[in-house]
Amino acid sequence: VLSLRGILPPIPTPFKLDESIDFEHLRSNLERWNEWPLVGYVVGGSNGEAVALSAEERIELVAVARESIPERKLLLAGAGLESTRGTTSLAQKMSAVGADAVIVVTPSYYGPRLDQAAFVAHYTRVADESPLPVVLYNVPPYTDLDLPVPAVAQLAAHPNVIGIKESGGSVAKIAAMVDQTQDDFQVLAGSAGFLLGALAVGAVGCVPATGCIAARSIHELIEAFDRGDLAAARDLQAGLIEPNIAVTSRFGVAGLKAAMDLIGLYGGPVRSPLQPLSAEESAQLEQVLRQASIS
Amino acid sequence: VLSLRGILPPIPTPFKLDESIDFEHLRSNLERWNEWPLVGYVVGGSNGEAVALSAEERIELVAVARESIPERKLLLAGAGLESTRGTTSLAQKMSAVGADAVIVVTPSYYGPRLDQAAFVAHYTRVADESPLPVVLYNVPPYTDLDLPVPAVAQLAAHPNVIGIKESGGSVAKIAAMVDQTQDDFQVLAGSAGFLLGALAVGAVGCVPATGCIAARSIHELIEAFDRGDLAAARDLQAGLIEPNIAVTSRFGVAGLKAAMDLIGLYGGPVRSPLQPLSAEESAQLEQVLRQASIS
Amino acid sequence: VLSLRGILPPIPTPFKLDESIDFEHLRSNLERWNEWPLVGYVVGGSNGEAVALSAEERIELVAVARESIPERKLLLAGAGLESTRGTTSLAQKMSAVGADAVIVVTPSYYGPRLDQAAFVAHYTRVADESPLPVVLYNVPPYTDLDLPVPAVAQLAAHPNVIGIKESGGSVAKIAAMVDQTQDDFQVLAGSAGFLLGALAVGAVGCVPATGCIAARSIHELIEAFDRGDLAAARDLQAGLIEPNIAVTSRFGVAGLKAAMDLIGLYGGPVRSPLQPLSAEESAQLEQVLRQASIS
Amino acid sequence: VLSLRGILPPIPTPFKLDESIDFEHLRSNLERWNEWPLVGYVVGGSNGEAVALSAEERIELVAVARESIPERKLLLAGAGLESTRGTTSLAQKMSAVGADAVIVVTPSYYGPRLDQAAFVAHYTRVADESPLPVVLYNVPPYTDLDLPVPAVAQLAAHPNVIGIKESGGSVAKIAAMVDQTQDDFQVLAGSAGFLLGALAVGAVGCVPATGCIAARSIHELIEAFDRGDLAAARDLQAGLIEPNIAVTSRFGVAGLKAAMDLIGLYGGPVRSPLQPLSAEESAQLEQVLRQASIS
Repeated sequence: VLSLRGILPPIPTPFKLDESIDFEHLRSNLERWNEWPLVGYVVGGSNGEAVALSAEERIELVAVARESIPERKLLLAGAGLESTRGTTSLAQKMSAVGADAVIVVTPSYYGPRLDQAAFVAHYTRVADESPLPVVLYNVPPYTDLDLPVPAVAQLAAHPNVIGIKESGGSVAKIAAMVDQTQDDFQVLAGSAGFLLGALAVGAVGCVPATGCIAARSIHELIEAFDRGDLAAARDLQAGLIEPNIAVTSRFGVAGLKAAMDLIGLYGGPVRSPLQPLSAEESAQLEQVLRQASIS
Repeated sequence: VLSLRGILPPIPTPFKLDESIDFEHLRSNLERWNEWPLVGYVVGGSNGEAVALSAEERIELVAVARESIPERKLLLAGAGLESTRGTTSLAQKMSAVGADAVIVVTPSYYGPRLDQAAFVAHYTRVADESPLPVVLYNVPPYTDLDLPVPAVAQLAAHPNVIGIKESGGSVAKIAAMVDQTQDDFQVLAGSAGFLLGALAVGAVGCVPATGCIAARSIHELIEAFDRGDLAAARDLQAGLIEPNIAVTSRFGVAGLKAAMDLIGLYGGPVRSPLQPLSAEESAQLEQVLRQASIS
Repeated sequence: VLSLRGILPPIPTPFKLDESIDFEHLRSNLERWNEWPLVGYVVGGSNGEAVALSAEERIELVAVARESIPERKLLLAGAGLESTRGTTSLAQKMSAVGADAVIVVTPSYYGPRLDQAAFVAHYTRVADESPLPVVLYNVPPYTDLDLPVPAVAQLAAHPNVIGIKESGGSVAKIAAMVDQTQDDFQVLAGSAGFLLGALAVGAVGCVPATGCIAARSIHELIEAFDRGDLAAARDLQAGLIEPNIAVTSRFGVAGLKAAMDLIGLYGGPVRSPLQPLSAEESAQLEQVLRQASIS
Repeated sequence: VLSLRGILPPIPTPFKLDESIDFEHLRSNLERWNEWPLVGYVVGGSNGEAVALSAEERIELVAVARESIPERKLLLAGAGLESTRGTTSLAQKMSAVGADAVIVVTPSYYGPRLDQAAFVAHYTRVADESPLPVVLYNVPPYTDLDLPVPAVAQLAAHPNVIGIKESGGSVAKIAAMVDQTQDDFQVLAGSAGFLLGALAVGAVGCVPATGCIAARSIHELIEAFDRGDLAAARDLQAGLIEPNIAVTSRFGVAGLKAAMDLIGLYGGPVRSPLQPLSAEESAQLEQVLRQASIS
């Protein structure tokens, strides 16, 4: 099974001022990130503004990213769409352009009708038909629903479902998922905010937006945890709280891009209807990064 | 300004057993509906499973529907996507295939970051660039957000924004929108469940899923209201409550399609991850329709 | 059956600066309200800050209010507590101090465990043991739950349950409740914001916070509706939207009390943890009232 | 500062069949619990059905419990009410009957108006006037609101505020609270479900419903964590997940009481409107306990 152990930041999709994809800056960002302690990347996920891209753009994005991502680093391609058939089709195309695995967000538009059986049916068909291993992706802040633990437990038994990115923030749920799935099912913390808690109950890696700007601290946290130095891990975790909030719940993708601009990567504009940070928000973000010594 | 007065049911997209679009049954359904008291149709909206269709499918769906929809009946094409630029592009294509107007659901994935300013920016750009008149579309049960009244009031002043489909169920909000917009801004009830209340405060029409199966009752309700016979209107409204719940919040699109099958239209399968009704749900639906004398 | 037809404002409980109940101003307010077109009052409800009063205070409040409320006007006493036995006991005491009926908010603390059966059990026992007729009270903005229609339909069959104050804002739900209960079950709109819609589907009265400051407009709305003049009713409804929002969802009880102060009634302070309006909020409130010609 | 390190289960209030407090079984339960590895108890909290008790009952409950709780074990008395003045008064009475500290749930009825300033004002006054140290208590599943971290950080500076019971389940929030408060501010996990994650980021103790039936496992978990044996801690955590869900979110207080009955403590009936478990729920609970070897 493909190992997802470590840090896999969900990278933003860079845009030019006209909101078209800026492939040149995609490459330059990746070149820099390739030197960081990352085991790979999620390309075309929530932080990649995947919902604002056409299917064609999503495929091209992965194809181009692959050119700059060496083989030894993983490329997880976002392949979730609202329909099962669309997701399956996209997963097949992601395989063709060099992704190592697909990460598939829960459908959510018809949330009130999406029960456990619907999710099991959806992901089972995707896993059956995807040539690439499948990582489940649960992100309640965006989908307003929560993939239930029993559905995860059932899906984990599928040979082509290798893990889950859990962004809901409940460490109790992570503990339950680790406990109710076989040993090689890999649970990834979807954020650096609850990483230490997640590691403590058995998560093996993370897909943190903060990894795009502060991978070193996250890496040190994991290393401290692995060697049993919880005091150090706790200090590192504390230092990540505010930056993490800033580039996720507080300022969203626009905040993450602005933070990248501030530290010399290319963030650039977001696609409308997302809006850039106001001057006041930018100042607050800058202060948070400064206090966290992120530069 | 294009008049939206009357009933514009949001029609389901018929699928074959393999989940591909069944254009033949689209035509046969429309032929039958054309004889009903409808002023037009919404094609490719929430009940049309638009989020489960590709952009190409959405355009073809509208093109084929137009062939079966006479000029004297309106075709409102769903054109909402998560990005402003995608929405604008889709609106332009809907114009090319014969739609009379576009109806644009609020983007919602990045809900926590979508404030009033974001919605005003989004819809203003869509209205600027759409060759067709724009109808706003607010549907909290699916989007988990609520387009704020001040945003609607501001957008209503745009010459190319002609109305809103409001599916949130708050008649107080409908009253506020009617009051805070100019006289020719048209508020449409998004459901038959609160139609009479909406008419009472100034809504001029409706986009009810129930219109696909019980347009006559809805039409009679509106006629009773228009001639001041509130007692009759209230009786008709009461009779619509349970069928309306059955084909919306309770059983969703699968319920609407099953109801269509029961009355001799073609409903057919839903696209996964939506699931067909269970046997028990089907029996409950059948009973609701029978009690409401819908056949 | 006791008729609840008309306007029954939920009056605030006046406090002195030290937050003790100000009975003198309770009397002076009632003397003025007694000249308004009101059929009665709700004393010790949500707007009466009942949850912030002790049981003893709630009883004394009703006793003193009764002295200033003539027999021809109704006194509905808030008697809801989180426990069934506490509610029953309080209802009995409200009878002893002269209330005409009790109004009983849904328990809500253990919301996740309160299903339809729990509500039916609760209200049935309260209705069995209360010497006074019982009015159900559903207020989702405060309780974060919604009393289900089937529970209401079942409870309406109890001879001692005479109606419901519905503050959830769904006119579809009001229509369903009117339809599924016998003719003498009385549905009251819990707010002036959706009053016209509620009347259209069969509500017979209202318990509006706005009734404490603008009973005349509400009265005229009901009269216009009763004589079939929907255009006039709609205009009056429109004029009530903003003041209603100001004294409910926007500024809460503190807003209602501040509005009373502005028009020459006694509003006075709220009990902590409720906080008085800020200077900016006060200015906004004043403007809303001025634009609505409430003085 | 009073040390809250360890396990402080929130004990249920035993009732007789007529729903009056059963003090005899209160004593017999405590006698048994006194032999368990507990540092103390929360009496009259959410699991004690405090909202269903009168203020007089709450005080008597604490007075009687104190008689059976030796001095070396802590008694934290629930003292939260919806009003600040009521809370303060209750805290003073809890002091008189022998409590060691008070635990004060956030007011919540007027949730939409309770912002950070309101909470700071509320708790500051309570802490100023309470003769006993104050523990904050945040429980979103019941209150539908979340005490914000900045409010906690500000309140932690008050010399009479010694800690918080956090039941929201966000370990990121716990990490933030630990980080933003002085060293002697004590954060307690409000549930055994996320205990290990909470300990990892600096929580010092817990107030778990599961502590009433499975204190030994929790104690072993904490000991394993303290000696750095994370593998053992993780196994113990895994074993607590299902029992914890059963006696909290799934079956609530009725589930906790039924579990106590099953293991030879006295659970007894809940107060209406809470309902006893159905036969099917009881069987499910029994199976969960059996699988977790709780007896």
